Amino acid sequence: MNFLDGEIRDKSHLYYFRVQYEDTDIGGIVYHAKYLNFVERARSALIRKLGFPAEELLKKNLSIVVKKLYCEWQNSCTLGDVIYVKTNLVQCKKASLVLNQLIFSDHDNKKLSETEVTLCFLNKNMKATRIPESLLKSLNSILPH
Amino acid sequence: MNFLDGEIRDKSHLYYFRVQYEDTDIGGIVYHAKYLNFVERARSALIRKLGFPAEELLKKNLSIVVKKLYCEWQNSCTLGDVIYVKTNLVQCKKASLVLNQLIFSDHDNKKLSETEVTLCFLNKNMKATRIPESLLKSLNSILPH
Amino acid sequence: MNFLDGEIRDKSHLYYFRVQYEDTDIGGIVYHAKYLNFVERARSALIRKLGFPAEELLKKNLSIVVKKLYCEWQNSCTLGDVIYVKTNLVQCKKASLVLNQLIFSDHDNKKLSETEVTLCFLNKNMKATRIPESLLKSLNSILPH
Amino acid sequence: MNFLDGEIRDKSHLYYFRVQYEDTDIGGIVYHAKYLNFVERARSALIRKLGFPAEELLKKNLSIVVKKLYCEWQNSCTLGDVIYVKTNLVQCKKASLVLNQLIFSDHDNKKLSETEVTLCFLNKNMKATRIPESLLKSLNSILPH
Repeated sequence: MNFLDGEIRDKSHLYYFRVQYEDTDIGGIVYHAKYLNFVERARSALIRKLGFPAEELLKKNLSIVVKKLYCEWQNSCTLGDVIYVKTNLVQCKKASLVLNQLIFSDHDNKKLSETEVTLCFLNKNMKATRIPESLLKSLNSILPH
Repeated sequence: MNFLDGEIRDKSHLYYFRVQYEDTDIGGIVYHAKYLNFVERARSALIRKLGFPAEELLKKNLSIVVKKLYCEWQNSCTLGDVIYVKTNLVQCKKASLVLNQLIFSDHDNKKLSETEVTLCFLNKNMKATRIPESLLKSLNSILPH
Repeated sequence: MNFLDGEIRDKSHLYYFRVQYEDTDIGGIVYHAKYLNFVERARSALIRKLGFPAEELLKKNLSIVVKKLYCEWQNSCTLGDVIYVKTNLVQCKKASLVLNQLIFSDHDNKKLSETEVTLCFLNKNMKATRIPESLLKSLNSILPH
Repeated sequence: MNFLDGEIRDKSHLYYFRVQYEDTDIGGIVYHAKYLNFVERARSALIRKLGFPAEELLKKNLSIVVKKLYCEWQNSCTLGDVIYVKTNLVQCKKASLVLNQLIFSDHDNKKLSETEVTLCFLNKNMKATRIPESLLKSLNSILPH
């Protein structure tokens, strides 16, 4: 089942999937907010791929939350399209991460959207907390020089 | 904010809302699975209306889960339509409930779907458990003779 | 990208995926209505696999709608679980299909739910219409004797 | 049913609703991407309130799409919370709009998130097109001086 979580290649994470009925709306294209679901799935797959599944983090009372996000929708996609999210780590601090996440159409590699998202780690009291050392080390391995 | 949870009239609960963009799909109508979300919202509103908000039940480690469900989709609805769920309690046992839930178009009162759903109460170990006496009493007040 | 649409083996279609954050709710498990999304994705993948992508059918003004459905929820699943839908064609008439769709946990093959769904084909006027001959032939190839 | 689309007061649009089960995730709070659904519902209600329901615009082959968006998540909300979106028009050009949309908790008026979104109008060929004069006039009536 290796395919379920995408793959890391040259410090980028690639995550492929097909657009489903439930992702589209009456306009005939994917509902805009679904792009945020798509990039979240990709981020979660990346962090799982690094050895830190979200459910394990939750057991340690660690949760990763979205602090802020900027997104541009550049092209639409629709039912049946195969698309992929390319995720790059941009910045890695002690308690937060910045990721750049592009969505592309697989068919013609056209860029569909660009997202920059800041994540932050919270403890069980919902207070910002340090990223575990082992995860930080893994994350550093995919940081560009 | 009384309108948020619908109203109980003649032992039926009525819950009105408008169909949103996110509810529709590329077919131009509401995505079929959303009907299950709609009836769940209506059930939750009914139980809240009886004085038992889901978040209070959760604090007491009580959760209400769907055990089985039969649904017929009879007519479609689309963006902007005002629709309502009419919920009737059909059966009330010690640890489970059966509800009949119809969805109608507000415009012409056409029936859109009919659902019969069996709910069951679980404790924190995910085992079937008795419905609290006070809730049972409230539920009995809306049971047909 | 063959993995995106599952596989047909011994007249059954198998469709694997991972449970995402967006699939779960405050109860800590997958929101019940999401099971309907899961089985719809699996059905659509099966029909695509047979050579009839939904977007091609839509271009021919053919849509496949859910007429009725019975579902039992037997076990829960949660964030990170790998689960699969096993779909079997039960009946194939001129304008409708009946499918049996089971969801299993990949980890221990425990059955999570069982669904029987009746689909019907509609033309652009939303009237029941015959399943195209070529699709009917493909469907018959996966009917049990 | 006037309550379904919120209300305009002092050039702001207010839109109240209750957080549902389906909005939450295993973290116990609302899934971050749902905030985008919430503000979209509010925007659509505002434009409907001005006399331009989305379904009417679609019939005229006009669609309103999200071009870009910035969002900060400042506080969480959970099952049962009553929250509201306060929408203000910030800028209104010939073919695009900028809206500021804040989400608040109704209980204590705590700010939950802040969004700035740029919308653009597309014709049936998915090209940017002018906002209809009558809508533009209505929009100008809620622009701050």
